[in-house]
Amino acid sequence: MIQYPTYDDVRAAAERIQGHAHKTPVMTSCTANTELGAQVFFKCENLQRMGAFKFRGAFNALSKFSPEQRRAGVVAFSSGNHAQAIALSAKILDIPATIVMPHDAPAAKVAATKDYRGNVVIYDRYKEDREQIGRELAEQHGLTLIPPYDHPDVLAGQGTAAKELFEEVGPLDALFVPLGGGGLLSGCALATRVLSPGCQLYGVEPEAGNDGQRSFRSGSIVHIDTPKTIADGAQTQHLGNCTFPIIQRDVDDILTVSDTELVNEMKFLAARMKLIVEPTGCLGLAAARQIKAELQGKRVGVLISGGNVDMMRFAELISA
Amino acid sequence: MIQYPTYDDVRAAAERIQGHAHKTPVMTSCTANTELGAQVFFKCENLQRMGAFKFRGAFNALSKFSPEQRRAGVVAFSSGNHAQAIALSAKILDIPATIVMPHDAPAAKVAATKDYRGNVVIYDRYKEDREQIGRELAEQHGLTLIPPYDHPDVLAGQGTAAKELFEEVGPLDALFVPLGGGGLLSGCALATRVLSPGCQLYGVEPEAGNDGQRSFRSGSIVHIDTPKTIADGAQTQHLGNCTFPIIQRDVDDILTVSDTELVNEMKFLAARMKLIVEPTGCLGLAAARQIKAELQGKRVGVLISGGNVDMMRFAELISA
Repeated sequence: MIQYPTYDDVRAAAERIQGHAHKTPVMTSCTANTELGAQVFFKCENLQRMGAFKFRGAFNALSKFSPEQRRAGVVAFSSGNHAQAIALSAKILDIPATIVMPHDAPAAKVAATKDYRGNVVIYDRYKEDREQIGRELAEQHGLTLIPPYDHPDVLAGQGTAAKELFEEVGPLDALFVPLGGGGLLSGCALATRVLSPGCQLYGVEPEAGNDGQRSFRSGSIVHIDTPKTIADGAQTQHLGNCTFPIIQRDVDDILTVSDTELVNEMKFLAARMKLIVEPTGCLGLAAARQIKAELQGKRVGVLISGGNVDMMRFAELISA
Repeated sequence: MIQYPTYDDVRAAAERIQGHAHKTPVMTSCTANTELGAQVFFKCENLQRMGAFKFRGAFNALSKFSPEQRRAGVVAFSSGNHAQAIALSAKILDIPATIVMPHDAPAAKVAATKDYRGNVVIYDRYKEDREQIGRELAEQHGLTLIPPYDHPDVLAGQGTAAKELFEEVGPLDALFVPLGGGGLLSGCALATRVLSPGCQLYGVEPEAGNDGQRSFRSGSIVHIDTPKTIADGAQTQHLGNCTFPIIQRDVDDILTVSDTELVNEMKFLAARMKLIVEPTGCLGLAAARQIKAELQGKRVGVLISGGNVDMMRFAELISA
């Protein structure tokens, strides 16, 4: 039986990652405030170590390894940011790491993972099952598998991003959080319900991969084929057994946005806020803009999840 | 006779701009630390309001206007960031603003200045004298001219960037500051000599426009033709009567870097730190990398001055 984490686990994670993860800046923009008619606070996890919030959860999970687990090593599967997060955390904690990555993961992510001395195993995203590959590697070599989102220590770690946001700016009227497998959203939900209980909490996913919205509205986990979207961090096929119940209990709604909206927000964040944000990281702002009529005069949080986008690809997208 | 500002003026400026200017984040990067062999602290003025440190000095200067000056209005000449800074400060303080800008200023800067309701007057950078145009406008309409750097209130305001840096991270062994006309460098020098007296303070300018280095080493202000460099914020022709004496007294050396080095640092800051930095903003990091042999094991500050670069141009530069 799964032990559901609580806000106490988020608090414990915050202590474990302190001094290792960056306390990322919360940024504001008068232009964003004017355009949305609200006071908008951007929690910039693109400025986190290795360029994404994923470091929080990975470091928290690996910090809890027993001496035996540390010696044997960790295995992880990921579309990219989790891979780098595990590789970097493992390097810091001196734990051997094996990373299973899709053949079409952004080159920048594969390179960075290797930079952190992670041992990379490539699979075909559209044909092979990464979870099975991960499980087999774990069994064969006695490694501990840390999945990208469906794990209590991972989601508790991700929740520290929202904890920091509320501690810095106080309670909010609404918070927009990118949604892939639900690690970030469920962790942030735990923090939100304690630190800003009246806050409307939205998960945001790409239109092409609306399994989260369908699951949320139907009450059971919906599985889909790998969605084709530029939001490569949200190309998950389903929510997790650990993340879904928390999302169902604590989140107010799941919204979806198009790839075109994501590109527009990438341009906005680059031109007006001088930030490089990956497509997945723009989900929150795109959704906030969509429902801005409901946000007039309110205090709104937007979680920017990451900035790991290939530079050539970024240049292409912002100049299109 | 010029009244030279002191650190007390920087402190007073900090009080005036509080609540209007952002307290910009100080960022670190393990990759930068490893590559430079030092502990590097980046003061991110690209994340300042209107995308550059210039807001500090402009807002400080306009805050000191008398009621008569406020009514009549302000005039400013600038290659771009100062223009936007004056226009935005004037808008906040409800002062009419006229801005004299070169014909080849980045489109993003002209557009942003107009956005802030500044009245823009265009001149030819290579043929006309912007200072004369500014003075004529001031005389004809009773406006107060605020020059981009050679003004005690402007440089005192710019110094608040270094003040914030030292207050956040403590004393440093070295600090690298971009140098155009010397407003930022002289202001930061006042803060450095009080808050971190043992710090080696370097001004950094583009190779093509090394008037600052020549002035510093010869002991008198050297005038040059408008240099052709991608660092458009440092295309000044000479240091100022107010900035030069402070620089001569308080700065340890002036270094120069090439446009190629600037582009390399733009790529580094984009790919590894997810920051959009304009070419001028990369001067400090490029110089630190140049003399990294002298920085081993040291605590080093790098002032990133701004992020206002046309998006198409930025895309071109990082994908070249």
